[in-house]
Amino acid sequence: MEAAESGRPGPAASSSSSSSSSSPPAAAEGEKTGPAAMRRSDRDGGADGRNVGFVLVHAGAGYHSESKAKEYKQVCKKACQKAIEKLQTGALAVDVVAAALIELEDSPFTNAGMGSNLNLSGDIECDASTMDGKSLNFGAVGALRGIKNPILVANKLLSEAQKGKLSAGRIPPCFLVGEGAHKWAVDHGIVPCPPDIMTTKFSLSAFRKNRRKLELAEKVETEMIQTKKRREVTENVSVFIFTLSTNVTASLDTVGAVVVDHEGNVAAAVSSGGLAMKHPGRVGQAAVYGCGCWAENAGGHNVYSTAVSTSGCGEHLVRTMLARECSVALQSEDAHQALLETMQKKFVRSPFLACEDSVLGGVIVLRCCRCSMDSESALNTPALLVEFLWSHTTESMCVGYMSTQDGKAKVNTHISRLPPGAVAGQSLAIEGGVCRLRTSVN
Amino acid sequence: MEAAESGRPGPAASSSSSSSSSSPPAAAEGEKTGPAAMRRSDRDGGADGRNVGFVLVHAGAGYHSESKAKEYKQVCKKACQKAIEKLQTGALAVDVVAAALIELEDSPFTNAGMGSNLNLSGDIECDASTMDGKSLNFGAVGALRGIKNPILVANKLLSEAQKGKLSAGRIPPCFLVGEGAHKWAVDHGIVPCPPDIMTTKFSLSAFRKNRRKLELAEKVETEMIQTKKRREVTENVSVFIFTLSTNVTASLDTVGAVVVDHEGNVAAAVSSGGLAMKHPGRVGQAAVYGCGCWAENAGGHNVYSTAVSTSGCGEHLVRTMLARECSVALQSEDAHQALLETMQKKFVRSPFLACEDSVLGGVIVLRCCRCSMDSESALNTPALLVEFLWSHTTESMCVGYMSTQDGKAKVNTHISRLPPGAVAGQSLAIEGGVCRLRTSVN
Repeated sequence: MEAAESGRPGPAASSSSSSSSSSPPAAAEGEKTGPAAMRRSDRDGGADGRNVGFVLVHAGAGYHSESKAKEYKQVCKKACQKAIEKLQTGALAVDVVAAALIELEDSPFTNAGMGSNLNLSGDIECDASTMDGKSLNFGAVGALRGIKNPILVANKLLSEAQKGKLSAGRIPPCFLVGEGAHKWAVDHGIVPCPPDIMTTKFSLSAFRKNRRKLELAEKVETEMIQTKKRREVTENVSVFIFTLSTNVTASLDTVGAVVVDHEGNVAAAVSSGGLAMKHPGRVGQAAVYGCGCWAENAGGHNVYSTAVSTSGCGEHLVRTMLARECSVALQSEDAHQALLETMQKKFVRSPFLACEDSVLGGVIVLRCCRCSMDSESALNTPALLVEFLWSHTTESMCVGYMSTQDGKAKVNTHISRLPPGAVAGQSLAIEGGVCRLRTSVN
Repeated sequence: MEAAESGRPGPAASSSSSSSSSSPPAAAEGEKTGPAAMRRSDRDGGADGRNVGFVLVHAGAGYHSESKAKEYKQVCKKACQKAIEKLQTGALAVDVVAAALIELEDSPFTNAGMGSNLNLSGDIECDASTMDGKSLNFGAVGALRGIKNPILVANKLLSEAQKGKLSAGRIPPCFLVGEGAHKWAVDHGIVPCPPDIMTTKFSLSAFRKNRRKLELAEKVETEMIQTKKRREVTENVSVFIFTLSTNVTASLDTVGAVVVDHEGNVAAAVSSGGLAMKHPGRVGQAAVYGCGCWAENAGGHNVYSTAVSTSGCGEHLVRTMLARECSVALQSEDAHQALLETMQKKFVRSPFLACEDSVLGGVIVLRCCRCSMDSESALNTPALLVEFLWSHTTESMCVGYMSTQDGKAKVNTHISRLPPGAVAGQSLAIEGGVCRLRTSVN
């Protein structure tokens, strides 16, 4: 794929690589996405530089069947369009990511908000967080019940904290969980949602199937273990229950978004219903600082503004602090190479996951810096150079992206898949693009 | 202070520094604790190298009145003794930190477990976590009610995860919160504790006082604000309610421990009742990966094994990821200098806390590497060189430390205080010591 000349960003290139390979990935279609290789495409002249911006969303790293590809792409498209509408009103990045997330959470096809995975008790408990690259503030909720849009609570926590201390000098919270989080949300004007409305036919049916599989698996294990330890048993039984276990753990489709606004501020957000059949009270990466999302404007030692949102197995993403690791790595020259190495060394082969035979996750990342719209002329029109990438070790990852210069018809959606023969949890795919946005700010 | 010659570790030196100073701290008693300056003291010959180890505990960074100094020191002493007893039975570091934490949680004087701060609703909700430097596993609980020793649940989560996957290939949780965490704990054999037993006379009395202060502060604010925004009001009112607000937020005495065992494994743990009058469901650094504690054995790029436990204002410690930042910094040559710079640049002057006028926290850190017991002879007896430090921006921090070679009578306890004139939240104190432990492992 080549970068379009019509003003839409990327998709510049796609590539995939086995995690065991030390050489750069072979570009699937002849070009990689590192800045050196990125084309000076997307020289849009339509916008006047006010209220520009760019959004990249994901509907999760996991497995997306061909039969449902259309729905997943449609969700991403709507989320992008909502973000762009918001950017065009002059909204800042932190509120734009929230707008995108609401669309993603409201879809019954994603594992976030409406239609989230049910836990072991048959309840929906959601995690979500957001980070503002401008203020570096963060808001998160964990194991939250009965709120249709957990991202709204995370966003509200962030904005409330920005107002300063509470009465009597108390420090405002940035992370709330469980009942307390629910109460805080309602007290701050967020309308509660009855649990049966958040449960969809699909999520309930998946829960019932999973419960039967779990019962069967546990029966088999109980019969087989008797005198053996669990680890040995799990290994012995794993072949037998393989078809069961894959379905229970395969639903990893957390959602997220990264945004840059007309001022060049970045923001990131993530929202998840968590692993299917998780223990009640389990909190995954979507609520944990540095693990679910990260956003940091340029400044100090940072040349680039960076924003990251992760998806996949929460425990793997927590223990590797993948969002922050990616953000740190993206300060190096070649964004593509930096992300590839981070996914290989700090995720798939991370010493923190040395005991895991399969490391499941994905990221969307964005970085930007100020540049000139047309470096070859003397006009020196201020612009933002936006590089965006996604990478995953799961079978697939659904993404969408759009800039204010695309117009409604030109949102890009894509289901990235591991190349044939690649092993999920051990190999990875990496793709991305680049665009320039004319701005009014220098 | 000089390192003792009797086999007990440090206290080698103490120093303090204004965070605004760029020069190294002036050593209070003529010597700083960087390895170059650390004396080759503590050449203990008593132990046979089996079951040796070292523990450093803290009873919180906050404010410790002179009138209660004895009790705080006594708590630290008991925790050290319990850890050393456990080390002498050959226990590994991850279980030794848990043993130390149980003593700290059981004390009514600390803000952890029994006698924890009450939240806005008058309930106790605890956070705790632990990390094993050997396996790099992590376990955490947040907003946990009705369990006397939250660290036991964190430790159990860690050890259960180490057994491998659950039935049907499900990934075991590493972080549980609220009701779900309570249920998991009870299902795993941890005895629940009625809330009224965990509430002490002292914590209830403090809650009642704080509630009255809060009501008064809110009344004053309500009268003053009317048409003003909260930030302006908080500033205006801050002088008036200063004596109220300091008491509400001053109770920051989270507890923690860092340990190295006879194999050279390190582990860290932390436990907290959270800020007084916090919102129900609020989770602080003690439950957040990378923020409350960190432990990483040497290996890969790491020359030293490092363990860190933090205390103070949870939101500040989360947003600066202080535990992990300290661990990373401790890989540089001079431990004292590395910790000092980290506390100054990545905590007090952190860009993530740029809007805070007062940054409150403290850390205990330990790092170790293999060495010879007597480098000047040809015997080359294997040993561990253990460097340990504490630093805080709060008024005071209570610590205790002990090695297996000290015997019961020689536990060291100390209340570290900011030097006269230093401003809490802006200045810092740093102290530490060094010891050598004969080991049986090379």
